[in-house]
Amino acid sequence: MSGLRLGVTMGDPAGIGPEIIAKACARLRPELARRSLSLVILGSAAAMRGVESLSGPIPLEDGSHTAPISIFDVGPERVPVEPGVMSAEGGRLAYEAINHAVRLASQGRIAGIVTAPLNKEALNLAGYHYSGHTDMLADLTGAPDSVMMLAHGDFRVSHVSTHVALAQVPSKLTEPRLRRVIQLTVEALRMLGIARPRIGVAALNPHAGEGGIFGREDIDITAPVVASYADADFDVFGPVSGDTVFVKLRARQYDAVVAIYHDQGHVPVKLLGFDVDPVTGQWKALSGVNVTLGLPIIRTSVDHGTAFDIAGKGIANEESLVEAIDYAVQLAGPADAAGR
Amino acid sequence: MSGLRLGVTMGDPAGIGPEIIAKACARLRPELARRSLSLVILGSAAAMRGVESLSGPIPLEDGSHTAPISIFDVGPERVPVEPGVMSAEGGRLAYEAINHAVRLASQGRIAGIVTAPLNKEALNLAGYHYSGHTDMLADLTGAPDSVMMLAHGDFRVSHVSTHVALAQVPSKLTEPRLRRVIQLTVEALRMLGIARPRIGVAALNPHAGEGGIFGREDIDITAPVVASYADADFDVFGPVSGDTVFVKLRARQYDAVVAIYHDQGHVPVKLLGFDVDPVTGQWKALSGVNVTLGLPIIRTSVDHGTAFDIAGKGIANEESLVEAIDYAVQLAGPADAAGR
Repeated sequence: MSGLRLGVTMGDPAGIGPEIIAKACARLRPELARRSLSLVILGSAAAMRGVESLSGPIPLEDGSHTAPISIFDVGPERVPVEPGVMSAEGGRLAYEAINHAVRLASQGRIAGIVTAPLNKEALNLAGYHYSGHTDMLADLTGAPDSVMMLAHGDFRVSHVSTHVALAQVPSKLTEPRLRRVIQLTVEALRMLGIARPRIGVAALNPHAGEGGIFGREDIDITAPVVASYADADFDVFGPVSGDTVFVKLRARQYDAVVAIYHDQGHVPVKLLGFDVDPVTGQWKALSGVNVTLGLPIIRTSVDHGTAFDIAGKGIANEESLVEAIDYAVQLAGPADAAGR
Repeated sequence: MSGLRLGVTMGDPAGIGPEIIAKACARLRPELARRSLSLVILGSAAAMRGVESLSGPIPLEDGSHTAPISIFDVGPERVPVEPGVMSAEGGRLAYEAINHAVRLASQGRIAGIVTAPLNKEALNLAGYHYSGHTDMLADLTGAPDSVMMLAHGDFRVSHVSTHVALAQVPSKLTEPRLRRVIQLTVEALRMLGIARPRIGVAALNPHAGEGGIFGREDIDITAPVVASYADADFDVFGPVSGDTVFVKLRARQYDAVVAIYHDQGHVPVKLLGFDVDPVTGQWKALSGVNVTLGLPIIRTSVDHGTAFDIAGKGIANEESLVEAIDYAVQLAGPADAAGR
């Protein structure tokens, strides 16, 4: 089979992973055929069987690569995993799914990995001491200096820093790190088909420090890095005040923004992609994709957690997973067409 | 005249202040009659005459308080002020407008002040060394510990800190300051007619520090302050992760959010209220109101600058000023009805 082949990892089988995978498969069936795309679901086959009414039957992976959708069973479950119940076994299966997916990707058997959510506590109970997927993938692929890009449609935000205390943020804004984030963002945009990417770099300080009155990092670090790209074959703008750079991104004045820290980038992406029902207070839309840049493999992810509270109830929303698969297709597609 | 009387300061007459005031007056004429509202425009009468075609004639204030709109002339202009040209004279007139407005407010002759934008550089050229309106008002009214609330409709965000370097932000989150911001926010919401306000307090650190792994301020400072309000006659929630608290605010799970720093609060408000034309890259919507809490007088403001580049061209948008007037009416209204 010559089409694009992606691995979809189930994450914690006690979360909404199996359900959103089944729903995404059902929704993507026509596109799978049209796009010459195939999906390998890595996780507990038992958990997928539990939601098979949502997707229709899916064969176990047999290496012949003929089915548009197949299951790579990382089970059997040593202890039955219950939907909504956190357990070491759920954490172990989540780890095994990623471990096998990285192996398949490094062997060239899949063009990229799309991950459903895992639970960090379950992972730790199982003896895998990672802070999450990104950390685990960095370790398994030997690529520690990755970059998180969040995307909602073409509203794309890369992050200089993410899971650090706000007090540590200024020390994370260094010339080499900023250059790496810009470079990886440009490469990702090129993979998405943008010939001459335009990047807006957010300021660290309010109003970019207003001439140094509120901090000098934007003048001393960001401005010289931006200026150094004057002759590049892409466009970099900044430092742009954080409170306007995302308004400009939404109006497509840039193809991506580089945010300096977690909330600066996450607040606008989630405000555009997430929604809460005003009456019930429950989440009703959770769209958005998390793309890890700087790994030797393509990796996209949903933008939400395991949602143990609604697991097994049939009400989980597959939108973010569908978007994550779509982003992986876009990132892997052209290269694949060229013979990957 | 028994109705509510507000002062509207012109800001820098070389900016878009005169134009947006004239347009707002034209738009509000029916409401002015219906609401028993009157406006005193404080600024250069010469500048208002220059835009009078947009508003219709406006009489000079004569102290008799009979006109629904009148001009309190802080001129004459000692040097003619040109639209779009920054000058010391523009800065001086901006200062005088505020100075007279504070005097009228302290005499009870106006119920609040609505400010059009000034230019900080012009102000400094004129010898008034303030960082802006808020600073000047704090000085003129003897109230240094004020709080900035940004609002776009009922999406309201108060700020623990604003114009400080990001590196200084953690030190600004103290128990007394957080309590003052919460208290002033509750008072403002009550003035807006909300009997039992609900306040969400944003976390300083990503994911509220995830149990202390990414910083302890949310655990050590914010959580105990929030817990202390358990028996209050308003509801305080938090620390809520910054990347979801504004999604919940938009879905009216709170009446206001307390943001810890400038960009955390400004990014979502401006993303909702501002818009850029995708084709021209020019700003096309600038809605939103800046309310200063903790002053002895009511003060609201537009949420944008002088826009010298478009001053005198007739294309400025009065939306933010109309909203600022409306917010001042809401804040002052009930008290006025009770005999202010």
